[in-house]
Amino acid sequence: MQKPYEFNVRVYYEDTDVGGVVYHSNYLNFCERARSEIFFSKGEEPILGEYHFVAHTLSAKYLAPAKFADLLRITTEVTQIKAASLVMNQKVYRSSDDLKLFSMQITLACLKGTTLSKIPEEFSKIFQKR
Amino acid sequence: MQKPYEFNVRVYYEDTDVGGVVYHSNYLNFCERARSEIFFSKGEEPILGEYHFVAHTLSAKYLAPAKFADLLRITTEVTQIKAASLVMNQKVYRSSDDLKLFSMQITLACLKGTTLSKIPEEFSKIFQKR
Amino acid sequence: MQKPYEFNVRVYYEDTDVGGVVYHSNYLNFCERARSEIFFSKGEEPILGEYHFVAHTLSAKYLAPAKFADLLRITTEVTQIKAASLVMNQKVYRSSDDLKLFSMQITLACLKGTTLSKIPEEFSKIFQKR
Amino acid sequence: MQKPYEFNVRVYYEDTDVGGVVYHSNYLNFCERARSEIFFSKGEEPILGEYHFVAHTLSAKYLAPAKFADLLRITTEVTQIKAASLVMNQKVYRSSDDLKLFSMQITLACLKGTTLSKIPEEFSKIFQKR
Repeated sequence: MQKPYEFNVRVYYEDTDVGGVVYHSNYLNFCERARSEIFFSKGEEPILGEYHFVAHTLSAKYLAPAKFADLLRITTEVTQIKAASLVMNQKVYRSSDDLKLFSMQITLACLKGTTLSKIPEEFSKIFQKR
Repeated sequence: MQKPYEFNVRVYYEDTDVGGVVYHSNYLNFCERARSEIFFSKGEEPILGEYHFVAHTLSAKYLAPAKFADLLRITTEVTQIKAASLVMNQKVYRSSDDLKLFSMQITLACLKGTTLSKIPEEFSKIFQKR
Repeated sequence: MQKPYEFNVRVYYEDTDVGGVVYHSNYLNFCERARSEIFFSKGEEPILGEYHFVAHTLSAKYLAPAKFADLLRITTEVTQIKAASLVMNQKVYRSSDDLKLFSMQITLACLKGTTLSKIPEEFSKIFQKR
Repeated sequence: MQKPYEFNVRVYYEDTDVGGVVYHSNYLNFCERARSEIFFSKGEEPILGEYHFVAHTLSAKYLAPAKFADLLRITTEVTQIKAASLVMNQKVYRSSDDLKLFSMQITLACLKGTTLSKIPEEFSKIFQKR
């Protein structure tokens, strides 16, 4: 099994809300950045002509809040590669003490334009060549 | 059973991304606005002294994309009221043709400051007096 | 002189930050919504084929902070219509007491695709037919 | 004169809009991150008890658009340190070819709670010890 991908995020003002913690939907943004960086880290992009991925389903757990100035570590594991979709497990940890703050399973569908499509070879090889 | 709460949202530039559709985490924002409006529509606020709700778990399905300029209708059903948490089903429809675009089940935990707390009477009555 | 356009915005969790007030860049978002609604209110859209407007310069003053749950009133005055650009004055007021919170002068350039373009007739008439 | 502070930002999906470029207010977010990182880079935070900075006025120029996947370089120069405010010039460059995309002059006011305040020594020394 492959080691998870890792990506670090800092919590800025824009990520927080009046409750003093990171606004709940911003964890999804952090996870999306981590997924895009898998591509960027290999000199590729997650948009390839008309091909790109979109969220299909997701299931998320909020375990503890991230706060302003926190450094976060996002881990991403690709758990299934199907013909037209990917399943990933993503977790967000507070870097200072490795406390797990958030976990999410997300299924991404591959689109060509607006149509569900077989994942092109250029994309699927991204997740194999480590 | 109660009729779902309804709330309308317009899709603006800020909600879209380079894919030409609403960015996936913004549906969570739209649903949060709809939840807050349940309080506002009764002359109350979802923050009451130290009491407020936070996302605990959520499970979401993306069915079809919303686009720039779309009018959306968000429905919110409170399906369970427990001592310290609420479960809600929320759906996002495109107003022009009533197509369902997104659905989510979310569990919200009640906090007093940073501690899990029994939902105060002032909050629980919000969901009863219709 | 024409009466300013008016548009109302509610402040939600997502708009606030850990400082307990609206995050500074979100006033620009509120103003953009108000500009787009000028088009929507006339049954038009601010994107017409390849034509659309982009921010060229802006100058903003923060006078007092908006808070969670506030209702805001945005006024928009078109002060200049040039061949390829528009100048607007936009102000944000707290509805409850009409306190002015924010003001901005913004110059918008008209683009056709990525090229500066004469404002098409369909757009310029939007700002005339009141 | 001091060398400007430098900070790098990647453009993700969330930063773009349907126009295919970075949404105009997100440049202000990028610049805010760069300002906060001045503090973080010295082991400090921009919030010190009740003391923090808020935007007072800003003036911005949009020169060329940033796109999805772009790496950006933000430069920050502190041009004036007054008793209760700071003036900064911030510029955003596309890293690949050093093209200037955006520039902004921003005046930040120091608050203690909600009241304008003399900048505390702990803050002003941040901008001196280089």
